[in-house]
This record gives sequence, C-alpha cells and structure tokens, in this order.
Amino acid sequence: MASDPDGDRKRAVVLVSGGLDSTTTLAIARAAGFECYALSVDYGQRHRLELDAASRVVSAFGVRDHAVIELDLRRFGRSALTADVPLPTKRAPDAMTDIPATYVPARNTIFLSLALAWAETLGAEDIFIGVNALDYSGYPDCRPEYIEAFEAMANLATKAGVEGRSRFTIHTPLVRLSKADIVRRGQHLGVDYALTWSCYDPQPEGRPCGMCDSCILRAKGFEEAGVPDPLGRG
Amino acid sequence: MASDPDGDRKRAVVLVSGGLDSTTTLAIARAAGFECYALSVDYGQRHRLELDAASRVVSAFGVRDHAVIELDLRRFGRSALTADVPLPTKRAPDAMTDIPATYVPARNTIFLSLALAWAETLGAEDIFIGVNALDYSGYPDCRPEYIEAFEAMANLATKAGVEGRSRFTIHTPLVRLSKADIVRRGQHLGVDYALTWSCYDPQPEGRPCGMCDSCILRAKGFEEAGVPDPLGRG
Repeated sequence: MASDPDGDRKRAVVLVSGGLDSTTTLAIARAAGFECYALSVDYGQRHRLELDAASRVVSAFGVRDHAVIELDLRRFGRSALTADVPLPTKRAPDAMTDIPATYVPARNTIFLSLALAWAETLGAEDIFIGVNALDYSGYPDCRPEYIEAFEAMANLATKAGVEGRSRFTIHTPLVRLSKADIVRRGQHLGVDYALTWSCYDPQPEGRPCGMCDSCILRAKGFEEAGVPDPLGRG
Repeated sequence: MASDPDGDRKRAVVLVSGGLDSTTTLAIARAAGFECYALSVDYGQRHRLELDAASRVVSAFGVRDHAVIELDLRRFGRSALTADVPLPTKRAPDAMTDIPATYVPARNTIFLSLALAWAETLGAEDIFIGVNALDYSGYPDCRPEYIEAFEAMANLATKAGVEGRSRFTIHTPLVRLSKADIVRRGQHLGVDYALTWSCYDPQPEGRPCGMCDSCILRAKGFEEAGVPDPLGRG
C-alpha cells in the first residue's frame, strides 16, 4: 500500500504553505526519497500570495499531486492571520516566546488531521510538517511534545493503524534547526527561495513588509546564513 | 473566559450530525447545564438530509450558535459515505466489528480538531461527541483509547492549554451505552427523534433504506428500548 505503483518510492504527505520552512521541508522529504503529495489549506488567510507561492513551489518540485483544501477558519475568528485583528510588528526574535495575535487556534492540529486523512487513503505512512521550535513565533502547536502527542493519537485514529497496516510518523525535520540552518539546508538542496513567500502583511507593490514576525525571522535566517534573500529585505 | 456573559453557564462545543447519537449527546450536554455551541460539518456526505436534520435538531434545542463548516473530504476519496463506493447492507449488528466501507479516514480527528479551534476562541473547555464503542460500526476513531489520546494532544496544542487557562475535556457520554440505552436516555430527556436522521442511503421518497448499518443499529436500539421509531422502520 505504501509504495508507488510506478516505482518503489514510499509516499509522503507534505504540508506546504509556500513559506521558507515548508518549502525546505518539501526539499528534505524529496531528498529522503519520498514520492511527495503536497497539501495546502486555503483557510481564509489575509492574502492570496501565500497560496500562489505554494503553487509555484510544488510546480518547481514536481510533486505527484497537490491538494488545496478550502476550509474557512474565519468562522471561528480571533486571529490576526484570518480576521481583522492588528498584526504585531517589529518584535525582536528572542521576544517571540509569548504567543502572538497571529496564532490561529488549533491550526496545525487541523492541518495534520487533513494530512492524516489523505495519507490513509494514499496508503502513506509519512507526514512532513515544517514546524520549528527554535526560531519560531511561540506557537504551542510547533513544539516536539505536541507533535509526539499528535502522532500517538494518529496511530489510534485510523483503520490503517488499527489493522496494523500502517505506523504513521510525523516528520519534523526543522524542529531543532535555527532559521540560518534552515536556509543553509535549503541552499544545499537547491531550493529557490525566490519562489517562496513568508510575509504576513504584503505591501501594495507586492513586497514583504519587513516588520511582521515572519519577515523578521526570515531576515535573521538569511543574514546569519550569510546568504542574500532573493525577495529582498522588504 | 469559559462562562456565559449572559449568565453563569459554561460553554461547550457539541458535534451535531443530526443523527440519533449526536442529538442525544446534545440533550445530555444541555441537561448538564452547558450553554451549547453546535458544530456540523458539510463534508460532501452523500445526501443533504443529514445536515437538514442537524439544523432541525439545533433549532429545537435552542443552542447559542450553530456553525456549519464546509470541508470537502471527497478530495481524499475512498469512503462509501462521500464517494461512489457501494454501501454495505444487511449486516448483523454483532458482525460490525470489521471496519466497513462507510469509514471516512480520520473523520472524527478532523471534526474534533475543528471543535477544538472553536472551543478555544469561545473560551470553552468542554467538547461533546456522540461516539459509541458498543453498538457501533467498528470505526477506530470511536474507541475510548482514541478519545483519550486526542484529549492529551489537545491540551498540548493550544494557547489556552499551554498558558494554563483551559483544560480541555472531550466528553463521550454515549461511549459505553447500548443503542437501546441511548434511546432510553434521550426519551428521558425529551428528545424528539422525529427530527433526527440516521440512514446512509435515503430512498427517493425520503424514507430510510432500512438496510444500511446505521438503519440496522437504529432499529435495534428502538426495538430493544421498546419504543417505536417515529421515522418508522424504513
């Protein structure tokens, strides 16, 4: 079930938002030999640039299939990424341990649940998500203990798990890396970061704002890696 | 956060499909004193009667809010409830331990994740789901060990959990009840089962088929409870 009918590669579902982290994660999954199925969620995020970037990225990587699932999380409200709540700006990376307004309640839980559903129908046992617990925004659903709990639950949730046909693994190859390490890893794997998009608050000319948490972390990563960001500094 | 601004009742999110089990669960949550927020998912199920029933049920119960989330699980395929796969029929209740074609991969995980997101934004700590591990269809995501694993994960997933503001509880008041006990409990709480819908395969005249797992389990419940089903036997 878990092998590719056209070859002998194992299948993996990779969550792809179009940002720096998920793009690097896709490159890592591909380099590890998986046949990749990319999953993006159109959840009512503030701007379409993120999903456009996801499409560019998966086209460049030649994934086997790309599912874009529509799920309007604005119905539940209360996030600066989906609703009309001001974005925090100009925060120092080491002050991002408090959970910001950009937190979307249960977002990774919902995304991983969708990935689990697809994995089961594909006969895939491997799910990749680009969470990072080092240079991150303080989101609870990026921490290793959360991912471990999700994996334990996933193996009780599914027909494939119960019947012993599958043992699901949630791969988090970036979880202990710095943003600089992520950029270096991506460069090594030939990732074209010009395809990606990170900014939470794109400017009218289609440029990154340079002030949101995501821009600040991205800039720190490229700077510390000694690599220019193809998107500029915003 | 968890109290009703108009009173002192705690809020709860209740998953409501419009069937016998979830309707009884809603009655139990209300009787326990919760202010109920009903959540239904339009996931591409074969027929609309299920969502119509959910609307009738929540109207009758006077819930505070009813969210119907659109999420097309047909993209992932492979279930008799969403795709063009034949429904199993005329199975004996005690032969339903094998997982049937009506299994929707990771369905309860996805539904509970959505409930968790809404609970967090509402400041609710309580989520109700009408899973049943006795007279059930053999779905892995109805078992107590699965629910416990989901609850453990939920308490690591959220800002409210991490900050110690909330301790989420997944309530499964039906999990150890027989279908007959469920019907009796609902009768005691004044549930009008004429509002509900259980059948997976409604007939052209809008009658239940009487042959799918859901009809068979429902009929067994009413019969053993000694109560006539207001929808008839199909």
